[in-house]
Amino acid sequence: MLRIPFDEVLAQLAAILRRLGFSEPRAETCARLFAETTCDGVYTHGVNRFPRFIATIRNGSVVVEAEPTRLAAHGALERWDGRRGPGNLNALAMMDRALALSREHGIGCVALANTNHWMRGGSYGWRAAEAGCISVCWTNTMPNLPPWGSAERVIGNNPLVIAVPRAAGPVVLDMAMSQFSYGALESYRKRGELLPVDGGFDTQGNLTRDPAAIEQSWRPLPAGYWKGSGLSMVLDMIAAMMSLGRATHQLSGDPEFECGVSQMFVALHPQAVDPEAVGPEPGTAAIADSIVASLHNARPAHTGTRVRYPGEETLRIRAENRELGLPVEPLVWVEILAS
Amino acid sequence: MLRIPFDEVLAQLAAILRRLGFSEPRAETCARLFAETTCDGVYTHGVNRFPRFIATIRNGSVVVEAEPTRLAAHGALERWDGRRGPGNLNALAMMDRALALSREHGIGCVALANTNHWMRGGSYGWRAAEAGCISVCWTNTMPNLPPWGSAERVIGNNPLVIAVPRAAGPVVLDMAMSQFSYGALESYRKRGELLPVDGGFDTQGNLTRDPAAIEQSWRPLPAGYWKGSGLSMVLDMIAAMMSLGRATHQLSGDPEFECGVSQMFVALHPQAVDPEAVGPEPGTAAIADSIVASLHNARPAHTGTRVRYPGEETLRIRAENRELGLPVEPLVWVEILAS
Repeated sequence: MLRIPFDEVLAQLAAILRRLGFSEPRAETCARLFAETTCDGVYTHGVNRFPRFIATIRNGSVVVEAEPTRLAAHGALERWDGRRGPGNLNALAMMDRALALSREHGIGCVALANTNHWMRGGSYGWRAAEAGCISVCWTNTMPNLPPWGSAERVIGNNPLVIAVPRAAGPVVLDMAMSQFSYGALESYRKRGELLPVDGGFDTQGNLTRDPAAIEQSWRPLPAGYWKGSGLSMVLDMIAAMMSLGRATHQLSGDPEFECGVSQMFVALHPQAVDPEAVGPEPGTAAIADSIVASLHNARPAHTGTRVRYPGEETLRIRAENRELGLPVEPLVWVEILAS
Repeated sequence: MLRIPFDEVLAQLAAILRRLGFSEPRAETCARLFAETTCDGVYTHGVNRFPRFIATIRNGSVVVEAEPTRLAAHGALERWDGRRGPGNLNALAMMDRALALSREHGIGCVALANTNHWMRGGSYGWRAAEAGCISVCWTNTMPNLPPWGSAERVIGNNPLVIAVPRAAGPVVLDMAMSQFSYGALESYRKRGELLPVDGGFDTQGNLTRDPAAIEQSWRPLPAGYWKGSGLSMVLDMIAAMMSLGRATHQLSGDPEFECGVSQMFVALHPQAVDPEAVGPEPGTAAIADSIVASLHNARPAHTGTRVRYPGEETLRIRAENRELGLPVEPLVWVEILAS
């Protein structure tokens, strides 16, 4: 793995985006989202994914200079058209819009149709947390997961992000509806390891921890079996219905042409209803810290371990990668330099 | 199992509640929620649970005539105190309030502190769906589930309800964060059956499908392992922070004294941003139906089965129980008649 300074990665990616037609500030923001994703340790959705992003620009799935347009508004709720712009820029703008609405109305909600892969969903949860807000956002995806009771992939893994601000570091849950992503299955297989728990069915229809068997059957498990399956379905319904956009079953099953997805962004402004709030949310802050403490104090299942909250490692990883440079796969970096 | 006509159940429960100090309309609504829950086939949380509800009134956990009070409001967001009133009446009133806010602002959100067990969460999803709205609501609970990485029960199973209106019957997801409830474990054990999938750890720390082993270890699994564990935690954080109410770790671990919980009610008004909406939501309705159809058309994993959506059986069960009478456990009915 290469280690490349954050600023060098940022400059390199931004230069490529400018050559592809991005304006200066949009190139900078888009590149920064990729670099920050890698910096935070989400290697599958950061710099390593940049060549695939470039491919979707070149094949016309992503329209570089398209910006979202508001189509309808009713108080704290708005409906926008993403116009097939870059998914991460669209998502960041829509979370910012939801945050603005939440400052005015206590809660804000933006439904976005016709957008593209948002890369790392957690980015938008972090954005809201840094603004002192609680947020919930999700995206639908192409059909990549069989619903419970079927062997056919007709639902999406529809990542859901829920983020809660906290002075010592936000809690950021960023979870897809499948128990393991295809990327995770591949990683386990390459390391010659079994999954820690059942991750799907083999071609005989038996639950298995063998990643290769699941890659062969194309039957990964929804998280929680029927529960993740149901949750995936309702998330798809809400995103498509509120945005009047595409549902999972209307999206291409080819990852390079997975475009025009539907997303939801909800922001909650805790200080709006916190009478003690004079500075940065004291009442809610104390509650958040007490919940984290109760988790940390839970007796671990195995000696020497500790219960962690979602996103707990991010700030440590971020600091380490800032210091040592961003880890990037050598072949990916060569490909990026050549683009 | 006894079969008792809906109206007889309703009259009997309402009479008992009036004797316990409920006003006429509140006794009627509270009794109706119990009867409808059983009628819809959710037998664990309907009439069979009524004696436990009565016990929480008698032990002072539930204050029969307490009604929720609004403590703070900011546009589409409100914070209320449930004053330890009956959980189902409080929850119904708060969903109605969120619905009213959503009609005004497109989205409405109510955070409720200091309330009690809401019985069947799905009731409030159905309520919103019948009003043509999408809804998301959840409650925290007493500590009853070990988080991922711990053998100690410090998180709640925090039921989450997401409901989507639909002319042919709403989609209502009503899921706790544990893969199986303690009630479900007991049912499987009494029938001498193994669980269909792993449901927890045995006392040796191995994953098991044996319900008795899980009842012995008190280590049921969060749905999706680390995913349900993380989701439970953030749902608790949001409910407690936004309501300035109690978090799971502050609630009694004794079910009879599980009171003062925190809840969230969010309603979305699809027609607010649907320009085609002249009658009952045409644009969104077509999208909802197409998603249901795509699920129904999915190739089943086993011949002779069909993929179903969450809540799909409810209307059929409701009609059957209306016709044949509500199924109630004989001992429970004897206990109710004697109360």
